Amino acid sequence: MSKDGEPAFAGADWGTSRFRLWLMDRAGNVLAERRSDDGLDASRTNGFSQVLEGHLAAVGAPADLPVVVCGMAGSRQGWMEASYVDIPADPAAILAASARIIDTRRDIRIVPGLAQQGARPNVMRGEETQLLGLVHGKPGFSGLVAMPGTHSKWVYLEGGKVSRFATYLTGELYALLCNQSILRHSIGQDADGIDADHPGFSAGLALALAPDFSLLGTLFEIRAAMLLDGQSEDAAAARLSGMVIGTEAADARAKAPAEIKTVQLVASGRMERLYRKALGAAGFDCETIDADDAVRKGLHAAAAGLWFSRKETTA
Amino acid sequence: MSKDGEPAFAGADWGTSRFRLWLMDRAGNVLAERRSDDGLDASRTNGFSQVLEGHLAAVGAPADLPVVVCGMAGSRQGWMEASYVDIPADPAAILAASARIIDTRRDIRIVPGLAQQGARPNVMRGEETQLLGLVHGKPGFSGLVAMPGTHSKWVYLEGGKVSRFATYLTGELYALLCNQSILRHSIGQDADGIDADHPGFSAGLALALAPDFSLLGTLFEIRAAMLLDGQSEDAAAARLSGMVIGTEAADARAKAPAEIKTVQLVASGRMERLYRKALGAAGFDCETIDADDAVRKGLHAAAAGLWFSRKETTA
Repeated sequence: MSKDGEPAFAGADWGTSRFRLWLMDRAGNVLAERRSDDGLDASRTNGFSQVLEGHLAAVGAPADLPVVVCGMAGSRQGWMEASYVDIPADPAAILAASARIIDTRRDIRIVPGLAQQGARPNVMRGEETQLLGLVHGKPGFSGLVAMPGTHSKWVYLEGGKVSRFATYLTGELYALLCNQSILRHSIGQDADGIDADHPGFSAGLALALAPDFSLLGTLFEIRAAMLLDGQSEDAAAARLSGMVIGTEAADARAKAPAEIKTVQLVASGRMERLYRKALGAAGFDCETIDADDAVRKGLHAAAAGLWFSRKETTA
Repeated sequence: MSKDGEPAFAGADWGTSRFRLWLMDRAGNVLAERRSDDGLDASRTNGFSQVLEGHLAAVGAPADLPVVVCGMAGSRQGWMEASYVDIPADPAAILAASARIIDTRRDIRIVPGLAQQGARPNVMRGEETQLLGLVHGKPGFSGLVAMPGTHSKWVYLEGGKVSRFATYLTGELYALLCNQSILRHSIGQDADGIDADHPGFSAGLALALAPDFSLLGTLFEIRAAMLLDGQSEDAAAARLSGMVIGTEAADARAKAPAEIKTVQLVASGRMERLYRKALGAAGFDCETIDADDAVRKGLHAAAAGLWFSRKETTA
């Protein structure tokens, strides 16, 4: 049995476009870290096992160190499919459904995603691991978690189990509008540099949070404002960002039960600032959970559930 | 002065990707027609004058026949900019602002677009000509006009003048989602084949017309329905089409004054059927105006206003 400060496992967040790995001890302390662009496409070409072993060797991981993986590596287009687990499911049930890579040297598991069956079908893959970490730190947690991103997730937890969730296409739609739509002529290259203190972001939020706002019916005004008023490219990007994030925030607030005042916001850096401002404007209080930290805590919670007794790891 | 049945002018609808020209007599009867892919890009390369003269020669137009042009040929990136006219503007004011191409042989005019200044900036270019035709046929018309397309216009007219309008990015967003977004994996190649009788279209409409519907928060379910329920590609496309057109229809209905029951729907073919169904489901009655016919009537109204006395042409 490893001690604190000695490698107990490695955890990897393996997504479509990036790969991150942490060497951790049994208490979840990070001993070494790797970040690379070895996403799914690169890994399919080079071999998933080779990519992983290369990173493990680089951090000096022992040959028999167990590895837990989350993210799109567990999708049908990934390394090995870890089939979605239907909600509600508690952490033990999620981990019991992890996929095991056949490997003679080490125990490698992929955490499955979660599925919401029925009239509002939905899936998540990757976020469930961050939620494992959240529940590990707050056993039996009930409440609302906002996880902004390309496909933002809004997750209701009850007694430590995911009870329902929704996905907003916010990040992807923003990128499509900035780069592929008629609005690209008005936005330029500044789309990813917008921060929460830009007055255009506040203006976009104010529009989106007003009664009867229609995103579909307002987007074109970004172009018209450039043609008629000479609106600058960064003002256009900021306004658009405020409009799309504000639309997400307003809808999430409208759909949340009134007794829910506080949201756990899983985000970092600029994204955290944008969403904290938007959620605040929509009427939520935010408790921020750093997104990277949430992934690491989730991978540690998964390792603890898979390989260590719970008693030993939650000190 | 030309008689009925003799060429009196040519009218061209010159857009970003296509060119259409009609040879017409003074009463607006079509004597000959041309359709081609000579949109702005092709015409910039080959020369706007050369492209136009080629089509005029093909229909045997006399060397001194006047020509009226509408569409993006009048934009800054087109042949010659015909600056936007601020609303409200009556037909005479719009035509007075047309741009005149310097040409020794013929009188060539480009109809200007319309601009809505202020807090809800908006522009149209091309649709104003269809509206000229509508008002020519219904002098002093007051009411609501829906003009579906890549950028759908909803136009309020009062006493024959455009009083305000909105743009919905419906067609462009649908194409982006089908071809560029994560949803493309669920939709395949059938996106443009959806018709109004597809049950998926009705299902999408029903979703969009329900209270508290959020397009941004529902789009991803198209993907989840494929992953979890094996939703077919054409069902996904139909559902998406119903969701985006339904979002436009629901918002337009919510914003229209209650006393407005009827919409003039300027559309043709499949698009007309999709929108008639959506607008009906949202609570509007529709009077269809064929979109091609509206352009021709608009170009004729413009020619009548520019060159013929009104008395001679409205029989």
